[in-house]
Amino acid sequence: MKWNYTQPVDIRFGAGRVAEIGEVARERGLYRGLLVAGGHSVRSGLAQRVLDHGRGTIEAVFSEFSPNPDVTEVDACAELIRTQDVGFIVALGGGSALDLAKAASVIGAGSRESVGSITDYHGTGKPLPLTHLPLIAVPTTAGTGSEVTCVSVLTNRAAGVKAPIVSNGFYPELAIIDPELTYTVPPYVTACTGMDVLSQAIEGYWSVGHQPICDALAVHAARLVFEFLPKAFTTPDDREARERMCEASVTAGLAFTLPKTTSSHACSFPLTNRYGIAHGEACALTLDYFTRINAADPEGRVNALARSLGYRDADGLADAIADLRRTLGLRENIADLGLGESDIAALVRDSHHPNLDNNPVVITDDNLLALYRGLASGGAANADKHNEREERQ
Amino acid sequence: MKWNYTQPVDIRFGAGRVAEIGEVARERGLYRGLLVAGGHSVRSGLAQRVLDHGRGTIEAVFSEFSPNPDVTEVDACAELIRTQDVGFIVALGGGSALDLAKAASVIGAGSRESVGSITDYHGTGKPLPLTHLPLIAVPTTAGTGSEVTCVSVLTNRAAGVKAPIVSNGFYPELAIIDPELTYTVPPYVTACTGMDVLSQAIEGYWSVGHQPICDALAVHAARLVFEFLPKAFTTPDDREARERMCEASVTAGLAFTLPKTTSSHACSFPLTNRYGIAHGEACALTLDYFTRINAADPEGRVNALARSLGYRDADGLADAIADLRRTLGLRENIADLGLGESDIAALVRDSHHPNLDNNPVVITDDNLLALYRGLASGGAANADKHNEREERQ
Ligand SMILES: NC(=O)c1ccc[n+]([C@@H]2O[C@H](COP(=O)([O-])OP(=O)(O)OC[C@H]3O[C@@H](n4cnc5c(N)ncnc54)[C@H](O)[C@@H]3O)[C@@H](O)[C@H]2O)c1
Ligand SMILES: NC(=O)c1ccc[n+]([C@@H]2O[C@H](COP(=O)([O-])OP(=O)(O)OC[C@H]3O[C@@H](n4cnc5c(N)ncnc54)[C@H](O)[C@@H]3O)[C@@H](O)[C@H]2O)c1
Ligand SMILES: [Zn+2]
Ligand SMILES: [Zn+2]
Repeated sequence: MKWNYTQPVDIRFGAGRVAEIGEVARERGLYRGLLVAGGHSVRSGLAQRVLDHGRGTIEAVFSEFSPNPDVTEVDACAELIRTQDVGFIVALGGGSALDLAKAASVIGAGSRESVGSITDYHGTGKPLPLTHLPLIAVPTTAGTGSEVTCVSVLTNRAAGVKAPIVSNGFYPELAIIDPELTYTVPPYVTACTGMDVLSQAIEGYWSVGHQPICDALAVHAARLVFEFLPKAFTTPDDREARERMCEASVTAGLAFTLPKTTSSHACSFPLTNRYGIAHGEACALTLDYFTRINAADPEGRVNALARSLGYRDADGLADAIADLRRTLGLRENIADLGLGESDIAALVRDSHHPNLDNNPVVITDDNLLALYRGLASGGAANADKHNEREERQ
Repeated sequence: MKWNYTQPVDIRFGAGRVAEIGEVARERGLYRGLLVAGGHSVRSGLAQRVLDHGRGTIEAVFSEFSPNPDVTEVDACAELIRTQDVGFIVALGGGSALDLAKAASVIGAGSRESVGSITDYHGTGKPLPLTHLPLIAVPTTAGTGSEVTCVSVLTNRAAGVKAPIVSNGFYPELAIIDPELTYTVPPYVTACTGMDVLSQAIEGYWSVGHQPICDALAVHAARLVFEFLPKAFTTPDDREARERMCEASVTAGLAFTLPKTTSSHACSFPLTNRYGIAHGEACALTLDYFTRINAADPEGRVNALARSLGYRDADGLADAIADLRRTLGLRENIADLGLGESDIAALVRDSHHPNLDNNPVVITDDNLLALYRGLASGGAANADKHNEREERQ
């Protein structure tokens, strides 16, 4: 087996460590910083605290963007970077803030004439320039792992497309992961972001691009989610549960950034884009379905993963995913959306994102149709597989 | 819990990939290479093959060094680097070749007047300069993991000291891990280097400097050793066993380079230095003893590790280590050396290497005395603990 590994992001993990930001910026010779801060950070005063911790290294703030950030917001941030002669970026927030900052750190590093707009690269396959401003990522959710990945997920609302871009220029220079910043995450967001961690760990593991270092980290992350997500959800101020979910989030990030995500993420993009379902909730909606489908993986890796996690086989893991989703009160179907056959056909079509090709078994349009019809009719998405299991018994 | 992570070494893993060396050197703009090659590589013709694969990027060879390389050999290599205006280094061989090359890449990167001799830094605590020539590490043993670590273990034969030096300047730029290069490793060296992998994984896990990413990789590596080392030992051309041991070696390297090794490595240095016991064999000699001692770790981490590896508790893991050592025909004691009390006292004294302070429970002189007396008398090193267990029953 051939595999490569690279992991250029330095990590500092621990409660209270956001206070180190000014010190690390100075150590690394970073000045004239721009703080890219999500809405929550601004409203809660956290952004101001980070400015203070910056001890003079951070001079401007950008917060004009939405969850699932839009390409126009990236271009606006890039323009600010150019006009303010920004020297480095601190990204503070959930995946939305981090992904916007990562993209802006590349687009803003050159002139509009030379680098262009993020729309030149989003969804076009054109490789991004590698030149970028140094970025310090400070996540406030335990979810995307974006602080260690070379991925930025952006939406082009005008074109109706949500899709990730991958570039080596997206690796942050440093990730400061301070579990205390996640204490304020409300239960529903804890549930969504936590299921994103689980999806990323599991999909990174079963991806056709799998490799052993990422495998080991995926198993580590997935175990932590099953153990600590219910507690983080019911008891938002449980220090241990929050800390271990942050650990799960960053290790899952490391686990999928090279192998990439697969079917559940591919399906999540149209579900979020068309119906506004939160990213992690959208991933979780199909994760058990694909776990059962992927049990047919010729290498037997999905069953092996299930056993590493303490389940008898892939079906046992899929059941545990469905149970966890229920415990967290997340949607189990999309019956409430009242979708017709043409909506379902559109979902099938838009699920053909390149990530789908990373899935260990080929996903046909019939698979997707069965999945979405099941979800839309409010029956279990796994109706067909459940029947099969009953027949086998 | 606070922890940091950094892993600057790019990895390319896979059978046959040593052939990529010229291509990667050119990609990275590396020219005027020096090949530092161990004795086996020169004699077997492997060094010549690597020169050919270098496609003109490698111009000189250095191979005047011994296993457990000496500080004088590092200085000689550094002098060659200076006089030949070397642009980068390819290190080919076991840990001995890699460690010599890592040290020479720093000492040779400046003038003798400015940087001095490696003896200015070895065992003195003086920090090494960070400036170094780029290094591509190509291991031919599945053992030290030196290809991804910031450690170089050197011996000063004149002073009678073997000790590691740690420096961020020691990280190779790239590791090319080609399992085919290990097919020729003879069974005894396979056994020694394989037990080094196991020691490094286990010690990295229980080190006071432990952290979660390294934990996950340590468990992964240790499992692979128990599963594949016996096969690699009895069937040297078993492709799968060799490949999985190489995977174990590099993941164990990643698992210990930040937390550092502990008691078994601390004791291995005088055992190798005074009695010429191979590094991995020396580590293995005390690993079961310290596993039993460290079961008292207040965090319960050693028992947790044992369970992750499928054993009931730390004693079960220690028994498995002793069984594996026996299967591999490695020494179980040092009775044949005929040591007297003064020799034992010297071993106790020289085991007080800083690595001993990384051990999760305090190791007293009484512990070391019991350990070495047990080993020297040919009884099990664990006599006292065995008795304790019998009493408990
Ligand atoms: N780059 C990657 O590798 C990667 C991976 C997976 C997903 N993503 C993308 O990241 C985005 C999702 O990120 P996310 O799940 O972190 O959500 P998010 O960043 O969109 O945040 C969700 C909501 O939670 C709020 N919030 C964030 N932190 C909070 C806190 N500490 N306390 C209270 N409220 C807080 C935000 O203001 C927002 O309203 C999506 O666009 C998704 O596609 C990126
Ligand atoms: N830098 C680190 O992180 C680190 C970690 C642990 C140990 N070490 C050090 O590394 C050294 C041990 O390295 P090692 O265990 O790899 O042994 P080694 O490099 O000393 O090699 C042992 C013997 O095997 C031979 N050999 C090597 N590759 C071979 C092959 N493919 N086929 C046949 N013969 C081969 C060598 O010529 C030598 O005679 C010790 O000095 C030890 O202290 C370093
Ligand atoms: Zn995701
Ligand atoms: Zn070692």
